[in-house]
Order: sequence, then structure tokens, then C-alpha cells
Amino acid sequence: MTLDPAALDAADPLADHRDRFVGADSDLVYLDGNSLGRPLRATVERMGRFVTDEWGGRLIRGWDERWFELPLMLGDRLAAAVLGAAAGQTAIGDSTTVLLYKLVRAAVTAHPGRTEIVIDRDNFPTDRYVVEGVARECGLTVRWLDVEPAGGLTPEALAGVVGEQTALVLVSHVAYRSGWLADAAGITRVAHDAGAWVLLDLCHSSGAVPVELDAWQVDLAVGCTYKYLNGGPGAPGFGYVARRHLEAEAFHQPVWGWMGSADPFAMGQGYSPAAGIRRLISGTPPVVGMLALEDMVDLLAEVGIDAVRQKSVALTSYVIDLVDRDLPQVALASPREPGGRGGHVTIDHPAMRGVTTALWRRDVLPDFRNPDGLRLGLSPLTTSFAEVAAGVAAIATELAALEQVRP
Amino acid sequence: MTLDPAALDAADPLADHRDRFVGADSDLVYLDGNSLGRPLRATVERMGRFVTDEWGGRLIRGWDERWFELPLMLGDRLAAAVLGAAAGQTAIGDSTTVLLYKLVRAAVTAHPGRTEIVIDRDNFPTDRYVVEGVARECGLTVRWLDVEPAGGLTPEALAGVVGEQTALVLVSHVAYRSGWLADAAGITRVAHDAGAWVLLDLCHSSGAVPVELDAWQVDLAVGCTYKYLNGGPGAPGFGYVARRHLEAEAFHQPVWGWMGSADPFAMGQGYSPAAGIRRLISGTPPVVGMLALEDMVDLLAEVGIDAVRQKSVALTSYVIDLVDRDLPQVALASPREPGGRGGHVTIDHPAMRGVTTALWRRDVLPDFRNPDGLRLGLSPLTTSFAEVAAGVAAIATELAALEQVRP
Repeated sequence: MTLDPAALDAADPLADHRDRFVGADSDLVYLDGNSLGRPLRATVERMGRFVTDEWGGRLIRGWDERWFELPLMLGDRLAAAVLGAAAGQTAIGDSTTVLLYKLVRAAVTAHPGRTEIVIDRDNFPTDRYVVEGVARECGLTVRWLDVEPAGGLTPEALAGVVGEQTALVLVSHVAYRSGWLADAAGITRVAHDAGAWVLLDLCHSSGAVPVELDAWQVDLAVGCTYKYLNGGPGAPGFGYVARRHLEAEAFHQPVWGWMGSADPFAMGQGYSPAAGIRRLISGTPPVVGMLALEDMVDLLAEVGIDAVRQKSVALTSYVIDLVDRDLPQVALASPREPGGRGGHVTIDHPAMRGVTTALWRRDVLPDFRNPDGLRLGLSPLTTSFAEVAAGVAAIATELAALEQVRP
Repeated sequence: MTLDPAALDAADPLADHRDRFVGADSDLVYLDGNSLGRPLRATVERMGRFVTDEWGGRLIRGWDERWFELPLMLGDRLAAAVLGAAAGQTAIGDSTTVLLYKLVRAAVTAHPGRTEIVIDRDNFPTDRYVVEGVARECGLTVRWLDVEPAGGLTPEALAGVVGEQTALVLVSHVAYRSGWLADAAGITRVAHDAGAWVLLDLCHSSGAVPVELDAWQVDLAVGCTYKYLNGGPGAPGFGYVARRHLEAEAFHQPVWGWMGSADPFAMGQGYSPAAGIRRLISGTPPVVGMLALEDMVDLLAEVGIDAVRQKSVALTSYVIDLVDRDLPQVALASPREPGGRGGHVTIDHPAMRGVTTALWRRDVLPDFRNPDGLRLGLSPLTTSFAEVAAGVAAIATELAALEQVRP
């Protein structure tokens, strides 16, 4: 297979979509789309139109006309486009952390008498911190699992630790550092065999990796919208609760607010949760923060997640091929097998902190992850093969320069 | 005093500021600025510039350059402009409801052994629901207080119920329905005498009524930014924690996230909260949702809250004068004394639900509040006296029409 970036870009069926994004034609080499995706050009126009026409023109009428239902409507569109979830189970709103808190608490509430939450030590800090906090306030134990470098939680490893004490297993679908892609269906089966729920964190997978929440029988899921969903810095997260738990009234979250109550505008005495996924909502939905996501959900529905995944695998495979050829001194910290990883690749070297600083100075933007990982985030709809080639070449140059000044 | 709207507008020192807002020159009569304030024209431009230059151009670098500190920087600017609070005590982020949850839980945690939360039955639903939810999960009792119609919680009434069992008193500075303006300083003194904390809800006061959180010795405060702070639909709320509680490490909130931890990018094991007000933050701050607020805070700092309050009092007094003259059949449901009310006026009549529908149809937009209140929200920087006069005239017409068809 060719490593010529021009040939690869010429053969890329998604290449034309790059023009739809702000700045994708610039000289910047952007390899951090899994921290913050680029804005769509359509979003520039939508934002301006929103302020003048929808907010400024419709004013309070906007709530009746569109905004009140937006967190659920947009949740359904997102679910259909990239989550493999039927309508009525997904809501947009709150930060990912707050949603994690609500969902972890709900899982604990649904399993009285069970005393453990299972999570791996390589999970993203906020997932671990939320679990620690909830365990402390509810008097539970956290069962911390260690995973291999460039590895992650497997159904087999999980089977050895879950049991009738387990309330919840919290796992990231794609690991934030290594890019390990978990077997979510297998993990869910093992957890269910023990009578526990699974909460799947989709932050690093939604919009890049196919997800089948309904088919996998996942109980709860959460994700952020500013990575591969291009919702903008700090855009609200999304939460998913399986219909069977909503219908069985088995789902109760702790932050009781008017917008998730059964009849918000009655303003009556006593909280009674709304039916369905609306009960996940607490306060007034962050409408302005959802606008950019609307555009990206439309585009993903148009392109299709399978085509996106195909490009994603091609990009990460290309990175690994170039690293093998040009960076013999670094260690691959991500799974080598394409089916085993998500949309980013991490390479380790003791000099990577310094390399990252040098790269940023020359407008090559990867991410650095402690202790010595350079993380290359490839956005299937905006990253070109030329960008990847330029990025790896720059890493080679900066690594060589840093190695030269060392003893 | 004249009731001629043209004369009043001509004499209004803030009249020129109306031009700075989208749509303030339209024929719409907007009397719901206390539900959703109008956008500033500057915000249209800021939004577009943000997407193309700041998000699209700076990409992930935006976090280092501005966004990471934005919730605290903007919190400080808001605090200085309208909250009467020194720097380092205010953060923007989360919905008001989520912030209420964090602050109520923090107050309970700070008062081990105390068993009661005090709140009045006329408080806004989300405040009541959060208190109910926290009381249930922490095994506490809610002490519900009844208040007079068009009245609210007084220091004297509070003194009769607080004691060594009281952990927290939660009170709205301006009541969402009646507009009653609470004596926050007096209430805080009474609560402190009993060893309890006060959480002041500023949703209906910040940006319209002078607030002196530091001078009043308030412990905790929360507010929303989409009413008189014109942050846009669902814009994030703000939270305040008095410096003495931060310094004494007496403040602990339950939603542990990476952005409120002591060293977010170390991504280490074990949550350790950041020093200062940053510990109020949980997840990634809602940057896009804060943009409009930046413009309004600038304008409020320029105009000054005392000038805003003066206009606000003039507007609400004008409403009451017109109601007295033209609407003898309605009951004033707000305090008649200007110093006793906030920025809105509610008038009651059994036909108000139908009147509201009729008014909306003719582009006169007040709000309806159960069971029979028409709420007139006057935005000091965007509402004209002509708008008020046209609104009250329309109410008179529609009330008369509805009365005519009745038996």
C-alpha cells in the first residue's frame, strides 16, 4: 500500500467534505480533533442567524416553538446518526461530568444492597473522580482494575471480578490515552450475568466509531459533543438511558429540577419526574451550546458512520505505518490491530513533552498526555493524509533535534 | 408625575442604550425580559468571530489562551459589575439547577448533625425540587414556610423557625412570581445567629437590582444569566461561595470532575479539589454559552447598576400607575412600595390565561404564571415607557373583550 499522502488524499471519498469546515484549508497541521473538533462553516452562519432571528426575533416564544424539545429532538437525531439507539432514550444537556454523576448515582440507586462500582485505573480522570465521589457519599467501594499498556478492560478480565456485589461497571468505549476500543457488547453481557448495569463513556468514540447501544443492551451511556461531534468548546454532553429502565421506572437521578419534572409550567408543590428520558434533565437546557452540534449531526447522518469509520481506520493505520518507517525510537502506545482501536494513536517517548512544545511553536498541534505520550487525534471528516504526513515528519525533525542536544 | 410615555422616554437617561439590542426598535411589545433578555447587537458579531477566529482559528490552543480561565475571569467581572463581590468567589458554569444542587449539598456537608433546610413554598420550583431531593438523599427535613400573597420571607418570620437544627436557609432575592425583594442582609444575620448558612438565589435580581453579597455576608449564591444578564436561552448559571468558606476549606461540593481538580492535566489518581472557587467547577466549562454574557457584563459595568435600578423602579412604578388608572378589575400581586420589589410586576385576574393567549397573538408578550397571574418583566436597558403603555393598553382591551363574552 502506498504511503504517498497525495495519492491517498486523491483516493479519499470523504476528501471533499473538508471544505465544509472552517480552516481545514489552512497550513496548520491539526492533530487534536479528538480534543476539539473544527467548526463547520454552516455553524458560523447558524450562530449569527440564531442570535438575530431565533433568539432576538422569537424571544420567549422560542421555548414553545423549538427550544423546550430541542434536547430530546437533537438527542434522537444524534442517537439515530451515530449511537445505534432508537428514539426516546437520549438527551443533550449538562457537562459530561454532571451527566456521569447523575447516571452513576442512578445505577447505584437501582441496585440497593450492592456495594461495588467497577472501573479501570486508566479511565479518564473525570470518570474516576465521579465514581470516587459517589462511592464516598453512598458508602460504596470502588473496585479498581489495572489494565495493560495499550490495552483495556476485556470481558474476560471483568468476569473475574464482578458478582452479586457489583452495582455498576463504568467503561470508556475508546480509552482516552491509548485509543483501546473496548468490546462493549461482551462487557455488557458479563456485567448483566452478574446483575449489574453498564455505563459506557462514549466521549472518544461517538462520531468516529460505530456504536450500537440498543443492540449491545447497554444500560446507560454518556458522551461529549466537542470532539468528533464538533459542537464547540465546552458544548453540552449527552446521556442515554435504555428504554427498558425508563419504562420500568427503574431510573432515578438525583438532581431534581423543574425542566425534568412532569409538568414544568404547573410550578406546583412536590417534584414528580417526567416520563421517559426527559427525567434526565435538571435545569434549563443549554440551547446556545447545542447549535453547532445540530450541523454536525446533519453531516454525519448524510455521510454515514461506516464511511467515517473507514476513513478513521485508514488515517490511524497511516500514522502507524509512518511511525514504523520514520520514528523507530518511539513506542506505539495504541493497539496495532485496526479493529482494536478508535480514532486516535498515541506514541510514547521520554522527550515527548518537549517535542509537543516545539511542534506547537511551528503550528503542528498534537496533544500531550502524561507521562510521555504524544496523542495524534485524527478527525475523519477534516484530517487529510497530507496533514498526517506533515505531522509525522515534524515529529521526526523535533525528536531528532532534541536527541541531538542530549548527552 | 406624568403618565405620558413619550415624555418619560424623552427624559430617560438610558434610552439610547436600547439601540444596542437586537429588535428593540421593532413593533413587538416585549414584557418578558425577566424570562429571556434580548441579545446585544455586539453578540451577533462576537458569535461569528468566535466560531471563525477563536474556535476555528485557535482550536485547542484556545484552552490555554483564554477558555480555561474564562469561567473564573468572567465570574469576577460579573461579581464586580453587579454582585457586590470581590474577585475569587464567583464561577460561571452548569445550569442554575445543577449549581443549586452543588451548593445545597455543600451547605449540608458543612453542617453535620443539623437536620433542617428552610425554604418558602413560593420559591421557584427548581429551588424547591433541589431541596426536596437533597433532603431525601441526606435524610434531612425541609421546613416549608408559607408567605403572604405579594409577600415573602422576612427576617422576623425566619427568626421564629431557625435554630441549632438549621443547616441552610435558601431564599430568592426577588420572588419569581410576586417580585417581592427580600431583605437579604437581615435574613443572613438571622440565619447566622442560628449558625446556619444562607444560599441566595439571584435569578430574578442580578442585573436589575443592586446586590452586595460580600457586605451582606451571604454564604452562597446562585443565579442565571439569561434574564437581566442577556446571556441567551439556557446560558450557564453562576455560583458564588464566600471567600471565608473557601479559605477555611469548609466548602465541599459533590460532583467531582477533572476541571475542578487541583491539577487537571496531571490526570493522576485520586480527586483532590482545586484551591479557591475553581473547586465549584466539575466538567469542561460551557465556553460557547458564555459569550453573550461577556458583552452584557461589559455594558452593565459601563452603565452602572444604580442607574439600571433607577430605570427599573421607574418602569415598575409606571406599570402600577397605569394599572391603577386603567385596570381597576385586576389585583396587584406585587409589592406596591418601590423599595420592596424587583424588576417585574404581576397582576392577577381569573381571565389572565386567556388574556395572555390573546396578547401573544397580537405580538404583546408578557408571561403567564399559575394560577392567574400576568407577569410583566421590564428590562431596564431594553424596555421603553412606550412599550409599557402599549402593553397595558393591550391588556385593557383584551380583558374587556373577554369580560364581554362572559355571562
